[in-house]
Amino acid sequence: MIMLQGLANAFLRHPAQLNQLSEADAEILLHPGVESDFLVLKIDGIAEEIQEKLYNDPYQIGWMGITVTISDLAAVGAQPIGILLALQIPAALLNNQEWVHSFQQGINAACKSYGVYILGGDTNNGDSLTITTAGVATGVKGKTMLRKGISVGDALYSTGQLGLGSAYAYAHYFDPQNPVQFLPEARLKQSRIIREFATACIDTSDGLFAALSILSELNDIGFSLTTPLTQLLHPEAFKIAHAAKLPSWIFLAGPHGEYELIFSISPEKIEAFEAACTTHQLQMHFLGHAQVNKSVDFLSGPLKVSCTPALIANLFQEANGNVAVYLELLMQQHQIWLNQ
Amino acid sequence: MIMLQGLANAFLRHPAQLNQLSEADAEILLHPGVESDFLVLKIDGIAEEIQEKLYNDPYQIGWMGITVTISDLAAVGAQPIGILLALQIPAALLNNQEWVHSFQQGINAACKSYGVYILGGDTNNGDSLTITTAGVATGVKGKTMLRKGISVGDALYSTGQLGLGSAYAYAHYFDPQNPVQFLPEARLKQSRIIREFATACIDTSDGLFAALSILSELNDIGFSLTTPLTQLLHPEAFKIAHAAKLPSWIFLAGPHGEYELIFSISPEKIEAFEAACTTHQLQMHFLGHAQVNKSVDFLSGPLKVSCTPALIANLFQEANGNVAVYLELLMQQHQIWLNQ
Repeated sequence: MIMLQGLANAFLRHPAQLNQLSEADAEILLHPGVESDFLVLKIDGIAEEIQEKLYNDPYQIGWMGITVTISDLAAVGAQPIGILLALQIPAALLNNQEWVHSFQQGINAACKSYGVYILGGDTNNGDSLTITTAGVATGVKGKTMLRKGISVGDALYSTGQLGLGSAYAYAHYFDPQNPVQFLPEARLKQSRIIREFATACIDTSDGLFAALSILSELNDIGFSLTTPLTQLLHPEAFKIAHAAKLPSWIFLAGPHGEYELIFSISPEKIEAFEAACTTHQLQMHFLGHAQVNKSVDFLSGPLKVSCTPALIANLFQEANGNVAVYLELLMQQHQIWLNQ
Repeated sequence: MIMLQGLANAFLRHPAQLNQLSEADAEILLHPGVESDFLVLKIDGIAEEIQEKLYNDPYQIGWMGITVTISDLAAVGAQPIGILLALQIPAALLNNQEWVHSFQQGINAACKSYGVYILGGDTNNGDSLTITTAGVATGVKGKTMLRKGISVGDALYSTGQLGLGSAYAYAHYFDPQNPVQFLPEARLKQSRIIREFATACIDTSDGLFAALSILSELNDIGFSLTTPLTQLLHPEAFKIAHAAKLPSWIFLAGPHGEYELIFSISPEKIEAFEAACTTHQLQMHFLGHAQVNKSVDFLSGPLKVSCTPALIANLFQEANGNVAVYLELLMQQHQIWLNQ
């Protein structure tokens, strides 16, 4: 199967791509050159969010399909080259010109924003819409970040305020009259500065606490978040938390995240890092520090919590993916902490 | 989302892969080196074949998921490095240990056979099973084949007898009491010889006639297949054609192909090519020649046909994907030719 001509025609081709559309059984690119040390690859997709109608707008689906993969490449500090696109599209959508156009626009806008190209693709008919993207990038030694590498005492930062992903999902499920806009931008630009300094990096595609749980396990450390979470909340999350009287930390619990980067900086590099951020006019948010004790400690309003890193992520498993049950479990957990 | 640990644990890791499982947001590989000129990429998947239950056995589904993509890389003459795996798996299958084990075995066997590694992946829950694979490979200038490049007079070859894909589908749909085995091997080994000589190459993933239709359009030529098709039939296709009194050409009509390579050799290189094949003990099958007249001319039993290249491929469109209707249309077409 190849990508349908009608779908592919809307995409710009990579200037280093040898073959035109359908001229070869695979896509052929001039080699990215010898300045890079690594080939960085990622496959990701959107299926559940579409099935749950969390993403419903074709422009948004196109944008997010590209963004989820670019965000992971950014978390590694890689320089993206392009994207392979695998689509499963029901016939009814494929025949809806307005839908297809808007979907293409979303893909194109994201590609343009990140400076990448659609290199090729594959389209299947199917009952449900899914979009899978494989990202190809290069990395340079010493500037390619793993999730591993954090030492006790390292400072923890985020590329932005957090909780927009949860705010969006909350509005969608529990307050559809007041929808939240969600077209997050993968932090590629920020990644180019971060990779010069960071000891580790991860994105918040599944929310802050899921990210901290992974970092904690891989690095055998814990985190003390000294910045009050309320202060870290994205304005949309803050607004909902205030109106619905929900604790701040719940908006950082995922599982629908917001594609910010969470990264660690060793103490001796903090000054240079913050200077570089100022130079490049990038605002980073200090969260706290890595600590010996394998707990995540945080402040949410009047609440001071110290919990095992996986506790919050595990609640979603316990809820069996049911969002209403999950919110209930989160509120129960909040009550447990209040009573302690 | 990342690949589920239980699924990923069964796969060997690439020796040049920097990160262990889940240690980074993307997969990091030592750069394939400066001997290669191109990065060759392909994304392909299996969804419809699974939904139609044409592929039902988990080992076969795993094997085919890898093979479809490697076959395209082989058609380009590329040297595969590895595969990214995107899976959508219903919970019921994921909880079936026997199923998962057999699925992993199929993937592993294919990877081993082609000398590639699973570099990373993404697993989603979903109502239907789909497997999408992105292949990463390198190519060398002068040895990287397009579908374009055929001149009139070039000889046309196949890496194997044809029609196994159709024979398998025919048995599945119309004679399930007599199933045909289908675990085709992508022609990677053959591709290493072919790329030294060929002017163009394509695989028969959609059957011979679909491949010829594409080659004809891209190169603005036609084909005269002087070898009688009956002689080119895979033994399984030959057996069914004989028993069901079906004409040979119908087994080359796809749309379910058999992953052989179809390629063209210019007259002055034929001798050297055939000598190389003998040296490497590779048996190739001569089909005929490229011609000025934009028709596909072939011999099927007593029948001598000259048709427009897209005619047969278009019949499947006309049948709207319905296999029984398609077979009927093919037989009608055969009758039209007999009556001419």
